Amino acid sequence: MRGAIIFIGDELIAGRILNTNAEFAGKLLSAVGLEPEEIITIPDREDIIIKTIKRLISEYDYIITSGGLGPTDDDVTTLALAKALNLPLVENKALLSAIRSTLEYKDTFEMAKRMALLPEGAEVLAENLKILGFRLNYQEKKLFFLPGVPSQFRELLEKRVLPQLCELKNKAFFQECKERGILKNLIFFDLNETELNQFLQEVSKGTNLRIGYYPVIPEVKLVLFGAKEEIERLMLLLRERFFLNLVGEESLPSVLGKLLTERGYSLSTAESCTGGMLASLITSVSGSSRYYERGFITYSADSKRELLRVKEETLREFGIYSHETAMEMAAGAKKLARSDFALSTTGIAGPTGGTSEIPVGTVFIALATHEGLYSLRFQFEGERDTIQKWVSYTALDILRRFILYGKSFFSYRFAQGYKERPL
Amino acid sequence: MRGAIIFIGDELIAGRILNTNAEFAGKLLSAVGLEPEEIITIPDREDIIIKTIKRLISEYDYIITSGGLGPTDDDVTTLALAKALNLPLVENKALLSAIRSTLEYKDTFEMAKRMALLPEGAEVLAENLKILGFRLNYQEKKLFFLPGVPSQFRELLEKRVLPQLCELKNKAFFQECKERGILKNLIFFDLNETELNQFLQEVSKGTNLRIGYYPVIPEVKLVLFGAKEEIERLMLLLRERFFLNLVGEESLPSVLGKLLTERGYSLSTAESCTGGMLASLITSVSGSSRYYERGFITYSADSKRELLRVKEETLREFGIYSHETAMEMAAGAKKLARSDFALSTTGIAGPTGGTSEIPVGTVFIALATHEGLYSLRFQFEGERDTIQKWVSYTALDILRRFILYGKSFFSYRFAQGYKERPL
Repeated sequence: MRGAIIFIGDELIAGRILNTNAEFAGKLLSAVGLEPEEIITIPDREDIIIKTIKRLISEYDYIITSGGLGPTDDDVTTLALAKALNLPLVENKALLSAIRSTLEYKDTFEMAKRMALLPEGAEVLAENLKILGFRLNYQEKKLFFLPGVPSQFRELLEKRVLPQLCELKNKAFFQECKERGILKNLIFFDLNETELNQFLQEVSKGTNLRIGYYPVIPEVKLVLFGAKEEIERLMLLLRERFFLNLVGEESLPSVLGKLLTERGYSLSTAESCTGGMLASLITSVSGSSRYYERGFITYSADSKRELLRVKEETLREFGIYSHETAMEMAAGAKKLARSDFALSTTGIAGPTGGTSEIPVGTVFIALATHEGLYSLRFQFEGERDTIQKWVSYTALDILRRFILYGKSFFSYRFAQGYKERPL
Repeated sequence: MRGAIIFIGDELIAGRILNTNAEFAGKLLSAVGLEPEEIITIPDREDIIIKTIKRLISEYDYIITSGGLGPTDDDVTTLALAKALNLPLVENKALLSAIRSTLEYKDTFEMAKRMALLPEGAEVLAENLKILGFRLNYQEKKLFFLPGVPSQFRELLEKRVLPQLCELKNKAFFQECKERGILKNLIFFDLNETELNQFLQEVSKGTNLRIGYYPVIPEVKLVLFGAKEEIERLMLLLRERFFLNLVGEESLPSVLGKLLTERGYSLSTAESCTGGMLASLITSVSGSSRYYERGFITYSADSKRELLRVKEETLREFGIYSHETAMEMAAGAKKLARSDFALSTTGIAGPTGGTSEIPVGTVFIALATHEGLYSLRFQFEGERDTIQKWVSYTALDILRRFILYGKSFFSYRFAQGYKERPL
């Protein structure tokens, strides 16, 4: 069962609207192993619609179209279909009366008549005839014509098209998938993708799992689809092999937030080079006020001294970008906020400000706990925004790892140094 | 000049991510009259990529692809292209050394080598070689291969592909445009798009200007393409009609940053509901340390009192979400930072925490200047992240308007109340 979806509309070609129907259709169809081989977007032009329908019918088993069924001049899908397949248009009386009974079209008999013209052999999809859209069998090929309005497209796709396609594909398979099939998203951080790739190739041999992964910088997202037992087996192996890197089923700010909430811990922040991004990530989570109390953005040396009580000698002797300054910043924030933990960042996000000793991307991240102060030096690469992102996520991950595994697990790919001292 | 765009990636076919690149490309290309006739999405499968490239090359003048240029097994675009066109793959030495110099790939020589293999005749698009992506001329057809990572796709499309396509479209037209002014991006804030639309239709009549605009929430971006005189004439009219809303040629954080730098002003922040996003936007601009000194994220009532000296009576009498609290927060930040200006935010970003009197989306934004304290009440709508964005950008815009026009121009579409008092 190979198929394609056609989205028809000038507004999609010109990017005036985002094609969320494509995302919905992709998710729904791939969840049952019926992902299309092409998703094609074309304008409201009869010649292009005819050409596209003709080509796809010759290549695929099923075709779904979206858009162009309405009453206005630029709705030409049905007419183009009839021309492409050389079928006469026939008035569907039940559909006509249903259209005429809806208020919107009361005064526009001509429009109603036009919408009720379907190619010979077409069957209306919606049982109540309230949504335009029809199916047509043509030379063993299954064709579905849906409206572009998202709510209508989704309803017909889910309730009418999907069951018919699944049944066609393999009735038993569909039943099984419905009962046992699952889709799992996993988030990783600080992951060596080559290592993950090799690992997945080995462990998925001989299984029917579908696996995809892609960076959502700075995290990596892994998507698993398959039978429940196989997914569970793979999850166990992943947890064992990548226990430090497997964040969970959500992104770091959410996962850390849940951890802090569960254990009743509170957190404060003291940021220099991340300039508020760390706090912004923490507070992007609804309910973060339960564990996040306050934060300091100490961009200047003055503010580090005045607000966080970083010592004058520390700044003079070790510099603003140092383990010592980072640790004193974290200690200051923790004390002022009376929180269980505090995270601090200081470094050079660039693009200017770097030196040969401390190049752009050099960052110190410190964690203050009730026991001690821990500081890691990192060397990140990228644009200013990318570096700030890496620093902020790494800070969140340092705390996540500390809570879960303790201070012995601060190994990171981009780390270049470590210092600790008692609080 | 007829063209097509190919998006390559299992994650798009399976609807795991929304294709925002398609929207961006559609907008940009149609703004200069180069809208594609097909936007086609296909999986990471060599056979389908080969088939699609072959078909589109025979039909169109230009083809842009997105995705599949990376180092992992499912990145097969380049290889498929070489097979489709029967071209040998050649190692691009400059690209190889650029890839190897980026830290991430230091230990993965094989991957770097793989990414540096380009079809014979290909030219790397990014001048600094930091972004994968190349162009290739084949039988008079112009082919562009871009990465799928949105920031990279957008940068190459806007900066490298678009100018080349415009040149191809009409050399004389492009040359003229290049010499006399061409593509202008304008950023608007708090704009009524219907008003802009009507205005543009009227004033662009009889011109050869191509105009596109689209929301980059919460800003609106307008793209003008045409002869210098016509653009300048339109810019004058736009400045006159939308002087409050026309931010400039860059986004609010940059424009405000330049304004503060030019005039030698300093700024501090005190955030509650934006939780660091306001500071993060300010410090996203390189050089922001020249005007941004420090910031407070006072999530709890305690922190508002302790750090910003918001009075106990104020919190009790007027509440945390009030003009009075917002003004005292701003006054506190300004005083502690000894800055020329301070911005504060307090309100409910949601999705929980709203009441009938103060529903989700109610936010107070205050500005402290040497003369006085000004507070506006707003009612925003949307998800938590959207509301935080609207609040942060609005705060920046309030300061921009104050510096440019004074306190008499605080009229905003979503504003619902105003209060001021001397400092």
